[in-house]
Amino acid sequence: MGFRSLEWLDHGALRLLDQRLLPAQKTYVDYTDYHTVAAAIREMVVRGAPAIGDTAAYGMALVARASQVETVEALRAELAQADTVLRASRPTAVNLFWALDRIQRVINDPANATVAEIKAAILSEAHAIALDDANVCKQIGLNGLALVPDEATIIHHCNTGSLATQDYGTALGIIRTAHEHGKHVHVLVDETRPRLQGARLTAWELREQGIPHQVIVDGASGHFMRRLGVDLCVVGADRIAANGDTANKIGTYNLAVVAHAHGVPFYVAAPLSTIDLKTPHGDEIEIEERTPREITHVEGVQITPDDVQVGNPAFDVTPAQYITAIITEKGIVYPPYEINLRRLFDLAEAPSA
Amino acid sequence: MGFRSLEWLDHGALRLLDQRLLPAQKTYVDYTDYHTVAAAIREMVVRGAPAIGDTAAYGMALVARASQVETVEALRAELAQADTVLRASRPTAVNLFWALDRIQRVINDPANATVAEIKAAILSEAHAIALDDANVCKQIGLNGLALVPDEATIIHHCNTGSLATQDYGTALGIIRTAHEHGKHVHVLVDETRPRLQGARLTAWELREQGIPHQVIVDGASGHFMRRLGVDLCVVGADRIAANGDTANKIGTYNLAVVAHAHGVPFYVAAPLSTIDLKTPHGDEIEIEERTPREITHVEGVQITPDDVQVGNPAFDVTPAQYITAIITEKGIVYPPYEINLRRLFDLAEAPSA
Repeated sequence: MGFRSLEWLDHGALRLLDQRLLPAQKTYVDYTDYHTVAAAIREMVVRGAPAIGDTAAYGMALVARASQVETVEALRAELAQADTVLRASRPTAVNLFWALDRIQRVINDPANATVAEIKAAILSEAHAIALDDANVCKQIGLNGLALVPDEATIIHHCNTGSLATQDYGTALGIIRTAHEHGKHVHVLVDETRPRLQGARLTAWELREQGIPHQVIVDGASGHFMRRLGVDLCVVGADRIAANGDTANKIGTYNLAVVAHAHGVPFYVAAPLSTIDLKTPHGDEIEIEERTPREITHVEGVQITPDDVQVGNPAFDVTPAQYITAIITEKGIVYPPYEINLRRLFDLAEAPSA
Repeated sequence: MGFRSLEWLDHGALRLLDQRLLPAQKTYVDYTDYHTVAAAIREMVVRGAPAIGDTAAYGMALVARASQVETVEALRAELAQADTVLRASRPTAVNLFWALDRIQRVINDPANATVAEIKAAILSEAHAIALDDANVCKQIGLNGLALVPDEATIIHHCNTGSLATQDYGTALGIIRTAHEHGKHVHVLVDETRPRLQGARLTAWELREQGIPHQVIVDGASGHFMRRLGVDLCVVGADRIAANGDTANKIGTYNLAVVAHAHGVPFYVAAPLSTIDLKTPHGDEIEIEERTPREITHVEGVQITPDDVQVGNPAFDVTPAQYITAIITEKGIVYPPYEINLRRLFDLAEAPSA
């Protein structure tokens, strides 16, 4: 790929590709403090649950690097402040909290006893989070391979590729892996209103990878299933509750319901870091409401009447009953999710024999 | 209302409100020949199944008025040519063909024996079509009233109001009538990609009428049904097959499937002129494929990568099983539609007792 969604620069900066400007412009912005990193997450310079986690972790590394304090206590206080601000940047994707929790464990680890040790350990953990993200996505792609027929028409919603993660992506990683393994995939790309991540970002990535695709409006998925036939849908996730209910980009739930009505398998692809066993049920997931401007304006041009009222939830929750399987780096999980998701974590956490 | 979608001017011109420029600009264009009228239908200066029918009829009136020929045969030949061009302007909405058929009957009526008589009869029939449209919509609104609770959250797709018809509209006519009868309606306006008739036109009409509303993206309907509760959906139609299958703006089918999954009643509001008993089944309805530019560009600004492939069906077909009832000017029709739609026509055509 000719781009990276995020990259740590050794002189102590985090470089982000400004995804708001794609595909028209490929502009990188360098960040050196956590306030602007939090703003970049909030304003969606960077988006995609795994990439948000990676970015937040590097945001903490920026704090550590810039800190001038001399005591561990003072450093922890600075880091705690940054942690609070970064956690508040977006409410729905759990990877943000997961990554910041990993950083917190390092900060509080008694093995890191000095300012210098904590600083080094934070950067090292941020790198590990990003590297894990890349490896995990590759494995998700391989694990999903068996679910993709040799000739497959696939509907994909939002963007879950290299821009949303490191390298392969989750749902798009499965599509890319299938393509690289010689399967003939044709992707119907939900444009994904309001922010058009499908039309702008997924179409751009698929084009770079030479994977055949067509952009469609979100409301057309049922028409294509009915008139042309669709083999499967695959999407990413921002948070998966313990019962399998899945928060993902607004429009995912409609797609899942329509797929169910047509008997089309509906898969969620996500790393374990997206599964939140502390959230028992999807109804408890906070749904971010974003600015009306995302709906009233496209590329700065107003399309609605002045001062129109808007409802703009950024995500919806797809109940587990509509999800055929959840594809993770540890394998494919089928219902009943209450049992099988927990089992996955038990397996992942068990000491290897 | 401070506008009219179409209006005949006595000096011999058809005035259309250019709906492509709404809500930013209210621009009227006067047409005096059928070629430009056909182009106006094709390019969606005017849209909405009933308004397209009215426009095509007036297009024929323009031919009649401008004709310089002296024999009935020559006039009929001119009219036949215009009829062919107008019929080819858009393929899906049946009101276009229905209105042109009404004009044809007048042309071929032996009672109209002279050039002057035929010319006068065509204009008179075009006026009758437009007047019928207005009266029929008013009656649809009244007939639908009983289906709207006193407090109702309603999802509406596309635009079916004064802009799509004469005066009241079909689905929006029901909403307007309920509002005028003191019911508290709140409308969730599907923005209706790709052409955004909901965000641009329906929001504008509802605002003019003082009816509370919020614009939402098409993919959000299921989220609102699940989290906030929706009482009913109501949409218009471009063609209703004899078995009740309904072609309407792309996105209607997804909305119907999602409504069904939530037990939300899904109503189609349409005049008898939209019901096509000659089409037995929805799968036989031709679906217009429109230019990729409707998806790749919004208000002239490109949002997708260059040269992206696009699938842009303008309509979809909702199978009858998802339609709770069809609201017409002759009453509310419930399943089984094969029997009850035909019965409606028999009643309508029976001589009044």
